[in-house]
Amino acid sequence: MRPLHTLLTLLLAFLAAGLQPALAAPAQEQTSPKPKVIFFDVNETLLDLESMRQSVGAALGGRQDLLPLWFSTMLHHSLVESATEQYHDFGTVGTAALMMVAKNNGIALTEQQARSAIVTPLLRLPAHPEVREGLQTLENQGYTLVTLTNSTRRGVQTQLENAGLADLFTDNLSIEEIKLYKPHLRTYRWAAERMGVKLEETLLVAAHGWDVAGAKAAGMPAIFVARPGQSLYPLAAEPDRTVKDIRELAEVLGKRP
Amino acid sequence: MRPLHTLLTLLLAFLAAGLQPALAAPAQEQTSPKPKVIFFDVNETLLDLESMRQSVGAALGGRQDLLPLWFSTMLHHSLVESATEQYHDFGTVGTAALMMVAKNNGIALTEQQARSAIVTPLLRLPAHPEVREGLQTLENQGYTLVTLTNSTRRGVQTQLENAGLADLFTDNLSIEEIKLYKPHLRTYRWAAERMGVKLEETLLVAAHGWDVAGAKAAGMPAIFVARPGQSLYPLAAEPDRTVKDIRELAEVLGKRP
Repeated sequence: MRPLHTLLTLLLAFLAAGLQPALAAPAQEQTSPKPKVIFFDVNETLLDLESMRQSVGAALGGRQDLLPLWFSTMLHHSLVESATEQYHDFGTVGTAALMMVAKNNGIALTEQQARSAIVTPLLRLPAHPEVREGLQTLENQGYTLVTLTNSTRRGVQTQLENAGLADLFTDNLSIEEIKLYKPHLRTYRWAAERMGVKLEETLLVAAHGWDVAGAKAAGMPAIFVARPGQSLYPLAAEPDRTVKDIRELAEVLGKRP
Repeated sequence: MRPLHTLLTLLLAFLAAGLQPALAAPAQEQTSPKPKVIFFDVNETLLDLESMRQSVGAALGGRQDLLPLWFSTMLHHSLVESATEQYHDFGTVGTAALMMVAKNNGIALTEQQARSAIVTPLLRLPAHPEVREGLQTLENQGYTLVTLTNSTRRGVQTQLENAGLADLFTDNLSIEEIKLYKPHLRTYRWAAERMGVKLEETLLVAAHGWDVAGAKAAGMPAIFVARPGQSLYPLAAEPDRTVKDIRELAEVLGKRP
């Protein structure tokens, strides 16, 4: 009877896993060891883009509603750059995207005006209210915190200084070093290598579904921060966990052995 | 004095080129021979997306203004697929993008509703008014016309049949065959190879800046169709020519030797 019993147990476990995928998450989580390096996406994940709505809206003749379209157009064209084997830094792509959105909506805008509307406000984004405390808790718990962004290294350093978060990070990695935008798989593999750790010893924390999709596809564990107005990409592998903010992230990671 | 004269001539030519980039286009055009195959993008280039505004708007609780955001999100995530080495067909990516836009805007929408709002209307888009006549003129002039799209082969065939254009095309190429979305350089190279011609013997006609960017970067000549609400990607190489519609395209190509 022993082999049959084993078979039935396996079969039941298989059915349970298939029927109740929600149960799989805690099991998976238990197997994840404490990450040696936590990579953080910056814009929206740590910093609040809301304050840009005004400057971008003003550049677009009062059309604050076009902020999501601009952001999406910028992200699309960052991948157009990689797909066509070109590279311009993220601020330049963002400026071009704003000019396209303006033109497509019949709004007059010069390159200089577009650049001013984006670059300075982007460098001065405030942190979401719980971020400083959450990151501080993680650092106190012994975690190594590193940013991993599509922005330039210098840009993200300025952003973190202005948001009062610069002291919490061991390093700031920018894809400008390999000139391939996230979520290219190589960006995640390069980041782990750059920090001298294995992919499975890291963790990506991001508020963007496409970023989570890339990390998971590359073999990097990922936690999604469900900021208002953000959602997962339904066709990608699910994150290992979803949290509402960085305070909850610190609570979750604080319980790991 | 000869070297100085040459230097001055070069300097003046350089300054003139820099100051008047518009002058570069006709010179470049003269060097292009008659293309052996003309590749056409389909959505927006030949077919009018305007009729989708209603169905997408209805799915989004009346928010017709979100159509450009949906389209941009779909294009972004088609490249997310390629960047993360995944592939879902364009209709599935479009459905996922619509669900994300709905969720990010607090609108309830099921996958089935999202799919219905997109797939059927997309297959029944009407041609822009001048397209049939313009393509017919090109065919009469002896050009070989082929579609090259991110949609599935079957999808574009249905679209062309419904729009009354199917008889004008020698073939319909879909990136589903190589599972890499335009503007990946490989898609343009593969298309030329598939038709048995050299890249420089082809021509891409598209109403999207990112498509023109990919073709030019791959070494394929390209003409931009400046449909209302569309603009070039300012950071990419310029197209060989810009036309306002397919009738003007036929006029321009009719003058070639």
